[in-house]
Amino acid sequence: MDDLTQALTAGNRRALSRAITLIESTRPDHRAQGTALLAALPRREALRIGLSGTPGVGKSTFIEAFGKMLTGRGLKVAVLAVDPSSARSGGSILGDKTRMEMLARDPLAFIRPSPSRAELGGVARRTRETIRLCEAAGFDVVLVETVGVGQSETLVADMTDLFVLLLAPAGGDELQGVKRGIMEIADLILINKADGDLRDTAMRTVADYAGALRLLRRRPQDPPGFPKALPVSAIAVQGLDTAWDDMVHLNDWRQAQGHFRARRAEQARQWFLAELRAGLLARLDQPEMRARLRETGDSVARGDEDPAAAAARMLDWLGAGSEPPPR
Amino acid sequence: MDDLTQALTAGNRRALSRAITLIESTRPDHRAQGTALLAALPRREALRIGLSGTPGVGKSTFIEAFGKMLTGRGLKVAVLAVDPSSARSGGSILGDKTRMEMLARDPLAFIRPSPSRAELGGVARRTRETIRLCEAAGFDVVLVETVGVGQSETLVADMTDLFVLLLAPAGGDELQGVKRGIMEIADLILINKADGDLRDTAMRTVADYAGALRLLRRRPQDPPGFPKALPVSAIAVQGLDTAWDDMVHLNDWRQAQGHFRARRAEQARQWFLAELRAGLLARLDQPEMRARLRETGDSVARGDEDPAAAAARMLDWLGAGSEPPPR
Ligand SMILES: Nc1nc2c(ncn2[C@@H]2O[C@H](COP(=O)(O)OP(=O)(O)O)[C@@H](O)[C@H]2O)c(=O)[nH]1
Ligand SMILES: Nc1nc2c(ncn2[C@@H]2O[C@H](COP(=O)(O)OP(=O)(O)O)[C@@H](O)[C@H]2O)c(=O)[nH]1
Ligand SMILES: [Mg+2]
Ligand SMILES: [Mg+2]
Repeated sequence: MDDLTQALTAGNRRALSRAITLIESTRPDHRAQGTALLAALPRREALRIGLSGTPGVGKSTFIEAFGKMLTGRGLKVAVLAVDPSSARSGGSILGDKTRMEMLARDPLAFIRPSPSRAELGGVARRTRETIRLCEAAGFDVVLVETVGVGQSETLVADMTDLFVLLLAPAGGDELQGVKRGIMEIADLILINKADGDLRDTAMRTVADYAGALRLLRRRPQDPPGFPKALPVSAIAVQGLDTAWDDMVHLNDWRQAQGHFRARRAEQARQWFLAELRAGLLARLDQPEMRARLRETGDSVARGDEDPAAAAARMLDWLGAGSEPPPR
Repeated sequence: MDDLTQALTAGNRRALSRAITLIESTRPDHRAQGTALLAALPRREALRIGLSGTPGVGKSTFIEAFGKMLTGRGLKVAVLAVDPSSARSGGSILGDKTRMEMLARDPLAFIRPSPSRAELGGVARRTRETIRLCEAAGFDVVLVETVGVGQSETLVADMTDLFVLLLAPAGGDELQGVKRGIMEIADLILINKADGDLRDTAMRTVADYAGALRLLRRRPQDPPGFPKALPVSAIAVQGLDTAWDDMVHLNDWRQAQGHFRARRAEQARQWFLAELRAGLLARLDQPEMRARLRETGDSVARGDEDPAAAAARMLDWLGAGSEPPPR
């Protein structure tokens, strides 16, 4: 085991940061080091919790309060983010560290913003690997936050053990336009801001969602009573214990029934396939290759060559290895 | 030139059907024959027109009337469809052939349903190649119909020279929920059913869309007055001549300004890249490879191997060629 692996495994947070930086690097030698590091790490498992909600619903405030509650119980908590828009916004968690000031300073906690400058596939890949690093570093809980743009909820659900949807109290009887697909992947729906003037509305919203969840088909991976809707207040620090107890209960049940293992196994298989596809396509992205693609693309654009025939020629060449394609 | 190429080039419709069947086949030897055939075909160009509209708006009725008008002028017309849902529905055009009875029997026309059993990417690929076959067979106009599910309008616009959106007369002042992205790719918006009781509503709808189109940024590839909204009646056969005159005018202008050539060149380049990506990923879909992926996937799922490391190993193997990967 090299120094970095050793320090990381001992729970050293600077080592963890350095390892994540390797993994997020676009330099091929860094990526290779990162992959080697991952393969050499001891297998430890945290409870991976996905958390999603629209901007302003209180995700950062919730994570601060929830995270502090967990570290108060002696648990080590890592917080990661999947934010496909972070290239533009500059990263949601970074800006939000002020809302997570206490957690950020907590020696049992580790907060890392979403990798930037990448499309969703790239962010997903790095986040999956970062989760593994956090597990190897001995964290007990890994929270993965997403704002839920496009497909990001599904991506996060596909890399976590539990999926929590955070919602705001809603007047009226429409269900806040929550997509059916999201309802179907949620294990716990938390109605935040159940405090002060909003408390009554929040309780009605909880009842609405509890009703909606009952209408969904029962999933084999759920014990009775799940998925569940609950009121919480991140600011008043209310309902967080109950929510955590529910998560633990759900997870214990799934562990006992074999669902936990089955889900992780399927996730690993899908991750492997996604890596393989991404790796194949990445061959088209190497500098020499890009130059050649531009050249061939020009010839196709001029009409000198048929698009499909040109693609077939390039594929032959890629298959054969190192000889340049005939012109 | 082989028999099939010769018969196809001479405009033989049975040869065209056979060539399309080759191209739509999932058998690798057929696909290879199809690719070779495409590469050998003489380069002729039809006017490629994309046509989109929700179910019931009158696409089939319009195509029948519009197609008959064109063949009445001595033009050869091919009608293709891109329907990602055809696996379920059994193919929109096939069922619609009754609505296109006269056109289907017209010796100057050729109607082909959407290839079935394929995801959108596969349908797009085959439709692009079928367009080329129709051009080589001497068709003057190729109409590509789509119902506009998901991304299919964009796909069709990316393989045609003109894009026509067919809409129904709409009471009220909302713009029928037409997505902005679709407005932006439309060259001509035709408000169908501008007849009988619906005529007045249709004329108001035309005015609404004309107004909305004026608010869009002027595109460099448009002559003054375009994109344009017009009333038509497929059943009363009204407005079709005007619509065709506008298409011809638009196309002549783009030909003269170089936009036609530039668009086709860019489309060919993108087609080449899409083929190349699809071809690379198709390697994962070969029987021997699938067996190996299942096996490696199992080992990753059991936790015997790291997903990223397993993917890297498979990639090395794919790069090296024929040696099986070390275990
Ligand atoms: N009343 C109330 N306000 C809250 C609660 N949690 C968060 N907020 C407020 O909601 C706003 C958005 O919170 P933030 O955590 O930044 O939301 P995020 O965008 O989802 O991360 C802030 O003004 C918070 O103070 C809560 O439990 N109750
Ligand atoms: N009044 C009127 N009805 C039309 C017109 N064109 C089509 N329809 C009717 O609209 C319905 C749907 O037509 P169809 O061509 O099958 O629509 P598609 O689903 O878009 O292919 C049929 O009942 C047609 O008779 C038209 O120009 N005027
Ligand atoms: Mg936040
Ligand atoms: Mg139809």
